[in-house]
Amino acid sequence: MGISENGVFIFSVVVSLLAFGMAAYFYHWVKKQPSSNKRIEEVGGLIKKGANAFLSREYKVLARFAGVATLLILVFLPRPIWMGSPKANILMAASYILGTVFSALAGKIGIIVATIANGKAAEAAKNGIKPSFLVGFRGGAVMGMAVVGASLLGVSIIYMVTKDASSILGFSFGASSLALFAKAGGGIFTKTADISADLVGKVELGIPEDDPRNPAVIADNVGDNVGDVAGMGADLFDSNVAAMAATLVMALGLDKTLGGAANMEMIFCYASLGLLASIIGVLCARMGKKGDPTKALNGSTYITTAIFGVLTAIATWMFDFEWRIWGATIIGLMVGVIIGVASDYFTNDNKKPVRYVANASKSGPAFTILSGVSYGFLSVLPSMIGIGLSALLAYTICAPIGPGYAMFGIGMAAMGMLSIVGMIISNDAYGPIVDNARGLVEMGHLGDKALEITDELDSAGNTVKAVTKGFAIGAAGLTIISLLGAFMSEANIAAAEQGLMDKITGFDIMNPLVFFGLLVGAAIPAVFSAMLMLGVDKNAQRMVAEIHRQFKEIVGLAEGKEGVVPEYDKCIDIATVGALRELVPAGLMAIGVTLLVGFIGGVQAVGGFLAGNIISGLLLALFMSNAGGLWDNAKKYVEAGNEGGKGSDAHKSAVVGDTVGDPFKDTAGPSINTQVTVVSLVASIMAALFISFHLFG
Amino acid sequence: MGISENGVFIFSVVVSLLAFGMAAYFYHWVKKQPSSNKRIEEVGGLIKKGANAFLSREYKVLARFAGVATLLILVFLPRPIWMGSPKANILMAASYILGTVFSALAGKIGIIVATIANGKAAEAAKNGIKPSFLVGFRGGAVMGMAVVGASLLGVSIIYMVTKDASSILGFSFGASSLALFAKAGGGIFTKTADISADLVGKVELGIPEDDPRNPAVIADNVGDNVGDVAGMGADLFDSNVAAMAATLVMALGLDKTLGGAANMEMIFCYASLGLLASIIGVLCARMGKKGDPTKALNGSTYITTAIFGVLTAIATWMFDFEWRIWGATIIGLMVGVIIGVASDYFTNDNKKPVRYVANASKSGPAFTILSGVSYGFLSVLPSMIGIGLSALLAYTICAPIGPGYAMFGIGMAAMGMLSIVGMIISNDAYGPIVDNARGLVEMGHLGDKALEITDELDSAGNTVKAVTKGFAIGAAGLTIISLLGAFMSEANIAAAEQGLMDKITGFDIMNPLVFFGLLVGAAIPAVFSAMLMLGVDKNAQRMVAEIHRQFKEIVGLAEGKEGVVPEYDKCIDIATVGALRELVPAGLMAIGVTLLVGFIGGVQAVGGFLAGNIISGLLLALFMSNAGGLWDNAKKYVEAGNEGGKGSDAHKSAVVGDTVGDPFKDTAGPSINTQVTVVSLVASIMAALFISFHLFG
Repeated sequence: MGISENGVFIFSVVVSLLAFGMAAYFYHWVKKQPSSNKRIEEVGGLIKKGANAFLSREYKVLARFAGVATLLILVFLPRPIWMGSPKANILMAASYILGTVFSALAGKIGIIVATIANGKAAEAAKNGIKPSFLVGFRGGAVMGMAVVGASLLGVSIIYMVTKDASSILGFSFGASSLALFAKAGGGIFTKTADISADLVGKVELGIPEDDPRNPAVIADNVGDNVGDVAGMGADLFDSNVAAMAATLVMALGLDKTLGGAANMEMIFCYASLGLLASIIGVLCARMGKKGDPTKALNGSTYITTAIFGVLTAIATWMFDFEWRIWGATIIGLMVGVIIGVASDYFTNDNKKPVRYVANASKSGPAFTILSGVSYGFLSVLPSMIGIGLSALLAYTICAPIGPGYAMFGIGMAAMGMLSIVGMIISNDAYGPIVDNARGLVEMGHLGDKALEITDELDSAGNTVKAVTKGFAIGAAGLTIISLLGAFMSEANIAAAEQGLMDKITGFDIMNPLVFFGLLVGAAIPAVFSAMLMLGVDKNAQRMVAEIHRQFKEIVGLAEGKEGVVPEYDKCIDIATVGALRELVPAGLMAIGVTLLVGFIGGVQAVGGFLAGNIISGLLLALFMSNAGGLWDNAKKYVEAGNEGGKGSDAHKSAVVGDTVGDPFKDTAGPSINTQVTVVSLVASIMAALFISFHLFG
Repeated sequence: MGISENGVFIFSVVVSLLAFGMAAYFYHWVKKQPSSNKRIEEVGGLIKKGANAFLSREYKVLARFAGVATLLILVFLPRPIWMGSPKANILMAASYILGTVFSALAGKIGIIVATIANGKAAEAAKNGIKPSFLVGFRGGAVMGMAVVGASLLGVSIIYMVTKDASSILGFSFGASSLALFAKAGGGIFTKTADISADLVGKVELGIPEDDPRNPAVIADNVGDNVGDVAGMGADLFDSNVAAMAATLVMALGLDKTLGGAANMEMIFCYASLGLLASIIGVLCARMGKKGDPTKALNGSTYITTAIFGVLTAIATWMFDFEWRIWGATIIGLMVGVIIGVASDYFTNDNKKPVRYVANASKSGPAFTILSGVSYGFLSVLPSMIGIGLSALLAYTICAPIGPGYAMFGIGMAAMGMLSIVGMIISNDAYGPIVDNARGLVEMGHLGDKALEITDELDSAGNTVKAVTKGFAIGAAGLTIISLLGAFMSEANIAAAEQGLMDKITGFDIMNPLVFFGLLVGAAIPAVFSAMLMLGVDKNAQRMVAEIHRQFKEIVGLAEGKEGVVPEYDKCIDIATVGALRELVPAGLMAIGVTLLVGFIGGVQAVGGFLAGNIISGLLLALFMSNAGGLWDNAKKYVEAGNEGGKGSDAHKSAVVGDTVGDPFKDTAGPSINTQVTVVSLVASIMAALFISFHLFG
């Protein structure tokens, strides 16, 4: 039995709408949960206001950037307007705009519900851990459903309307450029606030976390939302769209006589089934009798994985899809799980690395750093091997189908890894919601029992985060490998159009143009990370100065006098303005160097550049995320009373490690993915221009 | 006018012997400098004894390793004995042994003179800065001359006797495997001792650096010698031999009709002229009237560079060598200088990065680390671009000569960069000698003036070190690119022998075997560094425990009672045993993974593996060396009275940065070069086996 293109299109749209329906249902469910505490409402309102203020300013900056990008696309892309047809340029520009809008909407929806769910979860904690968990999780699920629904719907519409690779890439580039802002900007914001609040609050004044006297406390909570909810959502929206875009572009170039036409149907069918599996998984998520939130979160991930495997097998059998491609998809999914487990090993406080670092902390902060950096370096090995091996296996399995299918198989492996992304996002967005809830319990004086409960929920969020982060990096890794395939495919189309006979069959490392590209490409993620971290550093210095000013000038603040409130919005303002100021040069640097390499060395240099970028990007992203997670948990492990416990020398050292780890894991590390994706898309979009204009070769 | 192969051979031997003569002359000059202070002689004797004890134990471990390697070569390499001729295997094994012996000898000579020169330089400091400088510099020059003389002589003999690529690679592999032990083992030793001495001495007890009560103080001084003198010498011996080996192997595969025969003469001629230029440069090194030791060191480097350029131009004109290749050589040399200048910018305390990190230290150690990591990441960009661009330019210049010449040009650029290595080593070995001299001045109570002088000399050593380190990494970068060429050349010879018709023309990134190799190869330098740093960490913990024991158990030690001496050798013992125990697994891991990748994915996977290894190796080596140098100088900058000066919070933070930076810059960073070279040579040597036996592809 076959399936028609229209049939699968309708199916995709229906599943997307179902996801939106679920999101709406969860949203209303969360919203109607009781709230009675005035203080929580007040503080929750401040967080909401701060998050929205940041988002609108960020979107304003983005709108300007997108405006310029749209103009450039209209004139130059996919072909300069004097060389191609204006229609193609208009379509691509429209797709680009749609990509930014969809991504922005998904982020906005996530923020709206997260800033409601945090307060509701705090109040629910009074009634026990199960209801509180459910509020947090369903709040996160709104984001998960909205993001994946939007990406599937967007790609489906663009493909059905245009059937054109450039437009799909344009949509993906729109999503990416927003993700770059959202992830990097949010990352700078959240760590600026977090570090500054801790530095003055915990270290200098010795007041507890989330103490309402701290002028940066609201900014810190806002940061959780804009960095971890909106930023992470945009990031995974981006990866998901990019994975679909890469496979679609490759599928468009495949030989139709080999059944290439069915590949389109398969891509949409699998993507829709992945979303369906996530919906079922989200609905199943409940805490068991023993009440372990970590198990509940991981359990529903495994359920989703299994459902996806079964559903796609049935579809492959029913619609006569190619089993080899199904195999590649499942390999991707499995490797995702393996990478998650490896990340967990290096960041779980029951395992050796965290214990070792906690113990080393007794000798001073230098040893916390050294041992953490060492384990962070070690942690890259399993994931790098896993990604490499899965690409190799997917390629080998799919190569016999026909020319071009091997690379397509890698793309499908990436899709497989991302198939359960709806579930992943739900788990991930749960984290900042319960983290916020913990703060609100403290500020609303809801009592020790509620604090204990939200502490446990928060800790589960941190543990699961390591797994989902590993997953996100792995998926991005495979996606960008397939984007390399998409780049070659685009370059060949452009070369044929320009009447060049030599087909590009690959990028030879022994070609010095490629090698030059490799070296420069490898340097970019390091430089990009450095710029973001220096941004956090500079911004935090500004905010610390502001906090000092407030404690000095606002009478009664330090003593906690009744009715004296710090000027929270000043801190939010600093974080916002600084984040946007610091991230723009980093983003422009990455894009600028790509253009430079392309116009210097042409397509071959860009091929090397992308590969170097991918390799060093993966290396640094894994290193930074895992080292950061490790330090965070080592600190928590010490705070739980080990190696001397709170206030000991080991604790002081562990806090230093955690402070270093914060921008590693929440600013630079996860932004690298987005940087690499953006650069890959820029390269694909510009391929024709690089062929026309270059200095060497 | 032409030059005969015999003529150039005689020239090489004469210049090598001249270098040995210079080494002997300087050695005797240093030795006959006056020494009168009993205390210095005593302590100097202890350092000498410790260094020799470490070396003999290290060489014992190495002898065992080399024994096993020799056996394996005899049976399997260049072809399994049942497939090739035993003669080739015997020649290769003999060359391998010669490589280890020459390298060991050069290291040993360096240690002998360095452990004499330190005391003489200390005493000379009583007479002023100029004589003290000259003793330090000439002591270092013994090492420089011996290392470069030995490498030129060794390669010349092997080539003239065998004219066989495998034997040359075998010699180079011998040098590399020793360098791996010397650099990594010495690196672990020196930082174990340094960190432990500081941690207990300066931090816990508040006694000054080099205080004789500290049981680790002699081990610390021994460490300077075995890590920075012997280790660094072996490292540069290795790079120098590898660069010559790679170009010779490529030259053997070049088309003779295009004048390929003249390439051999040119390689030896240029190498000899480089050594000659270094000899002249070393003789010219003197402090000017203003008495600035940094200027004296850098000045003689620039003189050497200029002399080399002129001499090779004359030779090229006289002997009708190819001017394009001369151009490639000079490009390499120029880029070396540029990389040195860039390293200097990031580590010089007159420049922004060091100042920024020193200032950030006021906010706590986490900011020292974050800003240092950030600048370390930024620092990789100019060097990566420089190396990539020089490879591109050398390739482009030499490509018109004929097939194979493009890659050969890159090899010659590496040779160009390494041409002045005699000068570089002299400058580098100067550092630990005057560092030791400073310690001896303190322990021998030679007075404040002498202390001031040796402080200034030491500081110049640190500044110049940044430049020479950048140089060493850049040279290693180009060398390993040309080793990639040598690998391909060897793989093709083996493929032809085995009757495979398809010539390997390159390594295509889009081939998943290559990509798999790229990813795994990129992970290895990170894992290798992590293992070394964890080694330092574990080892330092053992030594700290021992120091604590001594202060507790030896009565009167802490109080500094007359005649009470700590058990220095216990500490030296711990550092020695630990260093050797920790480095072996790291070295075996790197070699093991190379074999694994080769037997899994064959030659294509290995090609990718080497490229990944090179790229991430360069990235991490540059990052770690520069960040480490930056932290070191930021600490010194604060200690000079800035940002609060000694004892301030900024100082405490800067000390943490320096402690983290120590294993970065002296253990892991510089060992990565050697790791990459070893792996590249293993790959070249094993190429035939990888072609015969592999799982995929």
